[in-house]
Amino acid sequence: MASALAKPQEQPRLAPVTAIKPAAEHLAKKQREISVSEFFAKNRHLLGFDNPRKALLTTVKEAVDNSLDACEEARLLPEIEVRVDVASSNGAKPPPSQAERFLVSVVDNGPGIVKQQIPRVFGKLLYGSKFHRLRMSRGQQGIGISAAGMYSLLTTGKPIRVTSRIGENKKTHYFELQIDTTRNEPNILKDEEVEWDRPHGTKVELEIVGKYQKGRLSVDEYLEQTAIANPHARFVYVDPEGNRIEFPRTVEELPREPKEIKPHPYGVELGVMMKMLLDTNSRTLSGFLQSDFSRVSPSVSQAICGAAGLEPNMRPSRVAAQEAETLHKAIQTVKIMNPPTDVLSPIGEKAILAGLYKQIRGDFYTAVTRSPAVYRGNPFLIEVGLSYGTGQAALTPKPEEDPLAPVAEGEEKEAEVPLARLMRFANRVPLLYQQGACVVYKTVVETAWRKYGISQSRGALPQGPLVIFVHMASVWVPFTSESKEAIADYDEIRKEIKLALQEAGRRLAAFIRRRDRAHLELKRRDVFEAYIEEVAAACRRLKKGKLDAERLRKQLAAIAHAKTGGEKTDEIAGEKAGAPTVESTIIVTPEGPMGAIPGNEEE
Amino acid sequence: MASALAKPQEQPRLAPVTAIKPAAEHLAKKQREISVSEFFAKNRHLLGFDNPRKALLTTVKEAVDNSLDACEEARLLPEIEVRVDVASSNGAKPPPSQAERFLVSVVDNGPGIVKQQIPRVFGKLLYGSKFHRLRMSRGQQGIGISAAGMYSLLTTGKPIRVTSRIGENKKTHYFELQIDTTRNEPNILKDEEVEWDRPHGTKVELEIVGKYQKGRLSVDEYLEQTAIANPHARFVYVDPEGNRIEFPRTVEELPREPKEIKPHPYGVELGVMMKMLLDTNSRTLSGFLQSDFSRVSPSVSQAICGAAGLEPNMRPSRVAAQEAETLHKAIQTVKIMNPPTDVLSPIGEKAILAGLYKQIRGDFYTAVTRSPAVYRGNPFLIEVGLSYGTGQAALTPKPEEDPLAPVAEGEEKEAEVPLARLMRFANRVPLLYQQGACVVYKTVVETAWRKYGISQSRGALPQGPLVIFVHMASVWVPFTSESKEAIADYDEIRKEIKLALQEAGRRLAAFIRRRDRAHLELKRRDVFEAYIEEVAAACRRLKKGKLDAERLRKQLAAIAHAKTGGEKTDEIAGEKAGAPTVESTIIVTPEGPMGAIPGNEEE
Repeated sequence: MASALAKPQEQPRLAPVTAIKPAAEHLAKKQREISVSEFFAKNRHLLGFDNPRKALLTTVKEAVDNSLDACEEARLLPEIEVRVDVASSNGAKPPPSQAERFLVSVVDNGPGIVKQQIPRVFGKLLYGSKFHRLRMSRGQQGIGISAAGMYSLLTTGKPIRVTSRIGENKKTHYFELQIDTTRNEPNILKDEEVEWDRPHGTKVELEIVGKYQKGRLSVDEYLEQTAIANPHARFVYVDPEGNRIEFPRTVEELPREPKEIKPHPYGVELGVMMKMLLDTNSRTLSGFLQSDFSRVSPSVSQAICGAAGLEPNMRPSRVAAQEAETLHKAIQTVKIMNPPTDVLSPIGEKAILAGLYKQIRGDFYTAVTRSPAVYRGNPFLIEVGLSYGTGQAALTPKPEEDPLAPVAEGEEKEAEVPLARLMRFANRVPLLYQQGACVVYKTVVETAWRKYGISQSRGALPQGPLVIFVHMASVWVPFTSESKEAIADYDEIRKEIKLALQEAGRRLAAFIRRRDRAHLELKRRDVFEAYIEEVAAACRRLKKGKLDAERLRKQLAAIAHAKTGGEKTDEIAGEKAGAPTVESTIIVTPEGPMGAIPGNEEE
Repeated sequence: MASALAKPQEQPRLAPVTAIKPAAEHLAKKQREISVSEFFAKNRHLLGFDNPRKALLTTVKEAVDNSLDACEEARLLPEIEVRVDVASSNGAKPPPSQAERFLVSVVDNGPGIVKQQIPRVFGKLLYGSKFHRLRMSRGQQGIGISAAGMYSLLTTGKPIRVTSRIGENKKTHYFELQIDTTRNEPNILKDEEVEWDRPHGTKVELEIVGKYQKGRLSVDEYLEQTAIANPHARFVYVDPEGNRIEFPRTVEELPREPKEIKPHPYGVELGVMMKMLLDTNSRTLSGFLQSDFSRVSPSVSQAICGAAGLEPNMRPSRVAAQEAETLHKAIQTVKIMNPPTDVLSPIGEKAILAGLYKQIRGDFYTAVTRSPAVYRGNPFLIEVGLSYGTGQAALTPKPEEDPLAPVAEGEEKEAEVPLARLMRFANRVPLLYQQGACVVYKTVVETAWRKYGISQSRGALPQGPLVIFVHMASVWVPFTSESKEAIADYDEIRKEIKLALQEAGRRLAAFIRRRDRAHLELKRRDVFEAYIEEVAAACRRLKKGKLDAERLRKQLAAIAHAKTGGEKTDEIAGEKAGAPTVESTIIVTPEGPMGAIPGNEEE
């Protein structure tokens, strides 16, 4: 039976060769250096410029993130104006949905940039102030805005235009810049002084090939989510159709200023430490340990040197490879405090609740800000928010929204219930793409939502009217690519996300359980009440008409209500044991929302 | 009811500030250049060195990929030996599962590397022969192996050791190299001539912090899958436990040699073309178009210049920005042949079938190699393989393996049925990580497998005993990160994957349909046969005993078999219309496998 049938269609193959044909010398001629700009020009999808639609979003995002960082670093409440306009081609301006070229302009009220720095900040990849430090900020690589400039050059040939002023009694500088990809250096096309009506700030203008589309993954969505995570900033957005959308400031205070820290000794790798020993300014090993790391006191330093058997006064550059290894091992054996965690600036439970409540219609909201934790020596913290329901009165769920109903039987059913919406943030920046690659997504999928009364297919997001908000704040967010769209999968990060989701999930479960129970009781009461007449009649018959009909009905009605009295909605909100803490939860009842209503705390 | 309850726990916030505090000058002092090695040292997860386990895999992968590329480029059938050993620490060698440091060594029979190139190939990021060309190869960035060397330096402080010889009458060179991350240049620690018993080849040795674990995502799995996709190579693998595993060569011919091509005019972006105009060696615009692009004949060149209103003899460097834009638009209006597609070297349906059949137990196998297509001017092609079933006789499926059974009702059931296993490849390299970020995964999830008789939850992989193999071959694979673990989402790529999956899916559906029908018929026959005695008795009673009992039984049995005769297994395999083509499908029946059995074609 088993037989070779017709020979498969195959590509012709060359006969085997045993001699070396082009040989090493031939190959060697092709070896060349690759400039980092060439590399990213060819791989621009790594930077978020995969396609015209995403490129438009990324361009806006890089400029806005820079503006927010600059304002906060200068302790200014950010005011940012974003304009996306159709670029006219040969005088004609196609409608936004048809247009292929756009003008993007972002203006801020930030501190401005000193003249000498402007060309390299905007015209050189891997140049910036944020890479060589450990401090929570949106940018961290020195790539973003120069990459946008490079993309504009690649696609339209147009330079990036920068206007900046650093103070009222200072000149305003205007530059037109092009990146020279072969050298990774800026070409300055124009360098002028201009008039500007702002006392300080920066304006960036780019012309790019793009595609404008509303809805998911759009500039609009990015700005909406950015407003949720940055309630201290005010945004004005003029879209390509000319609509002016304002996202007003809802918190009049800047977030706590994040602090810069040194690396923690536990997180340092041997090779990195060896390089630090060579590069340090300290003259002694003990001084090096204390000044180049966080949490190393004189006594800790003493203990480390003792455990390693090294002289605390030796010159750091004299530590030999074998000694460095011993030192590295000794560090792990000495008890050292965790990194300082007050260096992070969380959004906070109140602000998350406020953002969700303002933007998303639901019956239940909750938020959890975890205590800081550490991965690879870097402090980080996780915040989670949930919104559940459709904003209908909480006690009358429609059958098809009942999350406790069995999942399937079920193509039809399953196809109807939408998947939960996941909103991911890193250092207050919304992450819109690459969801599948993100540890946040993976952890949400792996969480057992069924335990919390939410249906879920294996390997998929939970289902139902659920919005899940997850924020990671860190001095260094490990992104899976330069475009900073997904967070890499570290065990410590995964664990913290899981714990936060579980805490929020338990609160949600309590809400759903109570709601369903209340719903059931209501139904039972209805049935009981419907039969009161019959019961009353039966009772009278039993007592042979000796009872007062009206009084009997009243008594029976009281019994019916007493049965459900324990489920009064007040107590749902006020529930204490193992369920919603009032501070970080809002529940919407037919009588209105209850709990930590944002904006009400002054009343 | 709605009321502000206790004030939420909040981090203390600073009062708003309106004056510029550190101001631009302060910020400017922190601006610095970032070397590409510093960047990747800090972001080493971008290169696949996220954690010790993955780092071990990535190190092996980068070295093996380089070896395969080098052998094929020199037209040598690859022979590669991989050793992973526990590194002894203070003389003691922990067991592999406990060990934290490993020695990785990869030796090939390739053409070797000329002495002058060795330091930069292994000790400098962004240096190589594959970036500045369009040609199908595993490496394309000039990062991989130097990154492994950098990782080894970072984690163990040890240099990368390279031994290489380019021919029998040449010396063997041995180097010990360290990357200087601040400058991104190699430091040469040792440079010696040594004795070697190989006529030519390269050996790379690294000591890294790693973690050894078998199973999914392991070195073992990577080598298994590499062997499937590279049947012309022979691998010997000695694992940390000392086991010697051999993957013998199953095809004695090298794959067709991939050709280098020029970019296609349709795929070029305006800014890129402007740079090409400046960099070209051609003296005329017409010559530039013909020599720097593929598929531009003299007449096409003429047509482009005509459409742009430009003089064919003008100097390329004299084309002004506005003219370049017109030229760029003109290119899109002229009909130009698609890029040459014979530059790709597919694995081929036969080899895919052979690989799946050898490695995976199943009842049904099929393979589809699509014709080449084009994205962004780059030719690529998609190949898909499916294996289905558990290798049990095809006609007796167990109830719990019935793919047509309703999905759920169903936590318990659903939890039992495993998800399909997806094997992704790019230019013959298995992609083990970042599945969720990959266009292959997304397309498999979006494919409606239920149409093909396979159950699937929305947003998840299909379920059941199914293995899905997908290979993308291209002159330039758009990876989502430098670690080359996932393919970016281009519409054209997605479409080709979808079409290949659908073709394979239809064949699978035909198989499942037939199998289920045959199964049903078998059951029916069994029932009929069970009642033959009763039917015979009844017939005899009707005829009042005039019939011959034995003859009647025989006739009835013949009827029973006739009913199912149309479903003979031969015809399942031989089926022509809209179902398995024999060439690219194998079906395993109780009588043995049928179809394009690998290795049988010479019989």
